[in-house]
Amino acid sequence: MVGKSVVTLDDLTTSQIVDLLHKAQYIETHRHEVAHTCDGRVLATLFYEPSTRTRLSFETAMLRLGGHVIGFAGAQLSSVTKGESIADTVKTVSNLVDVIAMRHPKEGAALVAARAAKDFGIPVINAGDGGHMHPTQTLADLATITSRYGRITGLTIGLCGDLTFGRTVHSLVETLCRFGNVNFVLISPDELKMPRYVIDRIKRAPSCTYTEVRDLAGVIGDLDVLYMTRVQKERFFNEDDYLRLRDTYILDEAKLQLAKPDMAVLHPLPRVNEISVDVDHDPRAAYFEQVHNGMLMRMALESSVVGDTLPGYEEWKNEEVHA
Amino acid sequence: MVGKSVVTLDDLTTSQIVDLLHKAQYIETHRHEVAHTCDGRVLATLFYEPSTRTRLSFETAMLRLGGHVIGFAGAQLSSVTKGESIADTVKTVSNLVDVIAMRHPKEGAALVAARAAKDFGIPVINAGDGGHMHPTQTLADLATITSRYGRITGLTIGLCGDLTFGRTVHSLVETLCRFGNVNFVLISPDELKMPRYVIDRIKRAPSCTYTEVRDLAGVIGDLDVLYMTRVQKERFFNEDDYLRLRDTYILDEAKLQLAKPDMAVLHPLPRVNEISVDVDHDPRAAYFEQVHNGMLMRMALESSVVGDTLPGYEEWKNEEVHA
Amino acid sequence: MVGKSVVTLDDLTTSQIVDLLHKAQYIETHRHEVAHTCDGRVLATLFYEPSTRTRLSFETAMLRLGGHVIGFAGAQLSSVTKGESIADTVKTVSNLVDVIAMRHPKEGAALVAARAAKDFGIPVINAGDGGHMHPTQTLADLATITSRYGRITGLTIGLCGDLTFGRTVHSLVETLCRFGNVNFVLISPDELKMPRYVIDRIKRAPSCTYTEVRDLAGVIGDLDVLYMTRVQKERFFNEDDYLRLRDTYILDEAKLQLAKPDMAVLHPLPRVNEISVDVDHDPRAAYFEQVHNGMLMRMALESSVVGDTLPGYEEWKNEEVHA
Repeated sequence: MVGKSVVTLDDLTTSQIVDLLHKAQYIETHRHEVAHTCDGRVLATLFYEPSTRTRLSFETAMLRLGGHVIGFAGAQLSSVTKGESIADTVKTVSNLVDVIAMRHPKEGAALVAARAAKDFGIPVINAGDGGHMHPTQTLADLATITSRYGRITGLTIGLCGDLTFGRTVHSLVETLCRFGNVNFVLISPDELKMPRYVIDRIKRAPSCTYTEVRDLAGVIGDLDVLYMTRVQKERFFNEDDYLRLRDTYILDEAKLQLAKPDMAVLHPLPRVNEISVDVDHDPRAAYFEQVHNGMLMRMALESSVVGDTLPGYEEWKNEEVHA
Repeated sequence: MVGKSVVTLDDLTTSQIVDLLHKAQYIETHRHEVAHTCDGRVLATLFYEPSTRTRLSFETAMLRLGGHVIGFAGAQLSSVTKGESIADTVKTVSNLVDVIAMRHPKEGAALVAARAAKDFGIPVINAGDGGHMHPTQTLADLATITSRYGRITGLTIGLCGDLTFGRTVHSLVETLCRFGNVNFVLISPDELKMPRYVIDRIKRAPSCTYTEVRDLAGVIGDLDVLYMTRVQKERFFNEDDYLRLRDTYILDEAKLQLAKPDMAVLHPLPRVNEISVDVDHDPRAAYFEQVHNGMLMRMALESSVVGDTLPGYEEWKNEEVHA
Repeated sequence: MVGKSVVTLDDLTTSQIVDLLHKAQYIETHRHEVAHTCDGRVLATLFYEPSTRTRLSFETAMLRLGGHVIGFAGAQLSSVTKGESIADTVKTVSNLVDVIAMRHPKEGAALVAARAAKDFGIPVINAGDGGHMHPTQTLADLATITSRYGRITGLTIGLCGDLTFGRTVHSLVETLCRFGNVNFVLISPDELKMPRYVIDRIKRAPSCTYTEVRDLAGVIGDLDVLYMTRVQKERFFNEDDYLRLRDTYILDEAKLQLAKPDMAVLHPLPRVNEISVDVDHDPRAAYFEQVHNGMLMRMALESSVVGDTLPGYEEWKNEEVHA
């Protein structure tokens, strides 16, 4: 993966994704061993719009590997945009650093950046462009499922809320479909159902099934994973529909009583009120772990694309994973 | 102190404060020994309002201990506030870092943060919330008095200017009262006298005395320490009063002629005109040293709450302090 | 150079400039050896106006030497300016860090800063004040010429575009004149000719010559170096003049066919359209290399003024340079 830009998850093979998941596991349990993996490396975080959560995760990942960070975050970028193309900014920064994480409001910006950086052999990681798609969020989701179940297949995975506009769930479903053997339960109001192209993707996937339902309470008992998303008011035609439907898609301790004792609750964050704060102390709540797992996956990805080997990883993998 | 949040100085015992003062002394003279104390640690500076001076001090402290820093500073926080509670932001960041320094315009914000972070075992240091109280400023003041006199008790300490609204002086007085044996000289116009509750605190303190006076020049000769504060125009009913009183509370070389040769002049900074720039080169000027001492105290505090031992400190303490 | 502030290039002797050029060469080829040169040091980037490119270069330079960085960048500075003088801010920051890089919109700000920092023995590097003059841009230019030709003298150097207002070219010409033996070709419309004082400087320089021409295509074949600058629309009296002249000063592959095969194209960046993007892949394009060379020169300068020796440099210099 050395020098490889990751604009979408299609830039990674399934075996590369599996390897990243293993690396994240290794990193979690071998903090000291990996603390100097990227000594002397520099990451640039070029955030053309603010996304503090994502930026801090990318930055912490590089710092915990021993590397350094430079960059800008929204408010500081005036001099960058001063008549300069994304390509020129990226070519400039490619002459300073070893890897770039970029966030941009326009779809396609990450691809333009990846091409410009390629001239100088520098990999670009898409930290979200347009529609807030970003591959490392999905990697965080996969790592969280793995940390809870030891696998990402053979599970019943519920996706709940706004399934029409939530890019996060589309990306997760598509990636799980590459592995196959997942039972999807799609929980949403009629107004916010999963788009046809994602359903078609599930149909083509090996050993995958799906059900579409309106009610969370009725299916929560079947789920291994419940992926919650925000239902935004502005998606509805009128306030009445919103108020009527909203509570159906709020997870609280009452609904959680109906769930399996080891179900994992995921959410890409930030939440507004779709998960009640009384759920936070339930051991099934995995959404803050997801933040931690996102950082681990970014450590795995950043070290991989700059070409730095995690000390001791290959030996560990041979013993733990292949044994 | 491992894992301990510091929202106010009441969160620290007097012996913990004394230990931090010793640690600051040790750090000052053992830069090389402590340079890797916090290797691999990450501090988050969550500044919901800008306070560059304070932020840079917290950050430099962690960096000089070998740790790393992530964060945001006012202008960058739009995505954080986007419908997310302080508690959720802190829970998220607690899954990335080892210690949080938070600045927030609302009183009580640091306490909310400390409680949220506690779920993940992460300490929060209050870098100011509402009324700009922040415990590490008082620690900087104490360290500066210590560096000049080798002690914080048995001294005559003058506090001059706006004693009504200046939280910095209230916090300093209250903390000194915990140690006792201080002679306070409270110098202010009638409009800006020390509040009753602080006076009551002095009365209850062991071996503490106080005098209230209007004129700096008349008492400056008695002082070991002169703590200057800014007299803000908007505190007065009319411009005439302000202009009449202002000069009384400006420290210049002329007034300094009346002071003891080893008196120490402190100021929390930034100053406007209450200390004349010609005082800067006087050896009694200690207000820029205060910046340096603030950084040393933050190094002491940050390393303590993350649970990292300063190499060689215990041995030094046994020899130097207890001998 | 220990503790030396660099406000203009006149603060450096020609032999110090030559030494910095050698250091940059050494750093380029000895990354690992120099990676811990500034361990434990802290650079403050005080940017009172945004200049992302310059800031990132100063920061990366210190990080690649093993040091740390704190600072602010335009948007974050509200609390700094809150009634505080530049001198006080610099005195404060001087009590936290080892070296300061400052950018300020007002001419003379860097000199004020250098004087304030001197009280604490801290060097200030001017990263641009007023008119966007900054000595490290010229150092980047010199390093780029050196990396292409192994020398900065005995060359025919063309400067093209806006020669009236472009401080970058004035600074480069004046510095080259200190070394002498350069043949300048000044290419500009009549409206934007080189100012009289720069021409006079060339006339006084040892073995320097110059020609003034209007047309790039007619002289490009003679040049060893072509330094392009932006021709800003607002410099012209009317749109017609601008449109008529503009194309004359745009470098594209067609014009480049007329140039020597080893000519180097420089540009201080950002470019708008004065260099066509099809030139980027031509081996003569040196303007992104310039970014890299700027970082190397800042590494050389930062390590020099804080007084840290590049491990192995002296031995290398004795063998490589003096041999």
